[in-house]
Amino acid sequence: MSTYSIRQAEPDDYPPIIRVVDEWWGGRRMADMLPRLFFVHFRPTSFVAEADGRVVGFLVGFRSQTRPDQAYVHFVGVDPSWRKAGVARALYERFFAAARDLGCAEVLGVTSPVNGGSIAFHSAMGFERLPGDATAGGIPYTIDYDGPGEHRVRLRRPL
Amino acid sequence: MSTYSIRQAEPDDYPPIIRVVDEWWGGRRMADMLPRLFFVHFRPTSFVAEADGRVVGFLVGFRSQTRPDQAYVHFVGVDPSWRKAGVARALYERFFAAARDLGCAEVLGVTSPVNGGSIAFHSAMGFERLPGDATAGGIPYTIDYDGPGEHRVRLRRPL
Repeated sequence: MSTYSIRQAEPDDYPPIIRVVDEWWGGRRMADMLPRLFFVHFRPTSFVAEADGRVVGFLVGFRSQTRPDQAYVHFVGVDPSWRKAGVARALYERFFAAARDLGCAEVLGVTSPVNGGSIAFHSAMGFERLPGDATAGGIPYTIDYDGPGEHRVRLRRPL
Repeated sequence: MSTYSIRQAEPDDYPPIIRVVDEWWGGRRMADMLPRLFFVHFRPTSFVAEADGRVVGFLVGFRSQTRPDQAYVHFVGVDPSWRKAGVARALYERFFAAARDLGCAEVLGVTSPVNGGSIAFHSAMGFERLPGDATAGGIPYTIDYDGPGEHRVRLRRPL
């Protein structure tokens, strides 16, 4: 396995990513959550991991415009053949550094309560789980957070 | 028909909106494009139209973080029973004013090339259509702009 490098996302990264994102997420329909606008308008806080000229991971985030002291991770994807290589961790660390440089004091995000891998990953990255109105297996989550049936665990990490 | 007023969007506006947005859009599945984050983190440029304590329209937009001189309209919805009452126009005008106050010089957005009503509305609101790689009925659009099969007309309006 060769090495990868992290760089700022470009609009041209979008077409190859949107073609594979559902597959990277194990067949879940995720593409609608990722319009091109994130690769155009949130470049200062969006990054890709590249290996041999190919994108093998990406993180799309932004600075809150309601609370400029907060940064938010919207969407992360890693090529299944590059799992366990530290790509997601490297993308988050780059994002944390960018958010810190902007003066943000904390990072927020959400994940699905049924996505145990994501919940464990975020714990390992220093995220705490914010209170919700339900719990599953000790994990608090908010019912219908992103619409009917779209429950979410709310995550927070100080910078 | 009673009157409506425009105010800044609140996170609490999200649950009632996300329950009806697909219906307002004529049954198209739109809800995945509208996670709660827009109502939490982009409040300075997101607005609702309210009548008798009920939301009858909304506009979600933001300031570009790549190009702070640009504002972007992400999503607009109006209750079908409130069409032709000027709600969308009032929401856009409020957004234009907010974007101008932030120092933006232009507003961008995209719409579907098959959405004739939206294309006509944006023309009437002063948006020009940017060049694309295909045309339909004289309307330029960009193939696969938001992913495979998701063609878009790119729109721009100076402020």
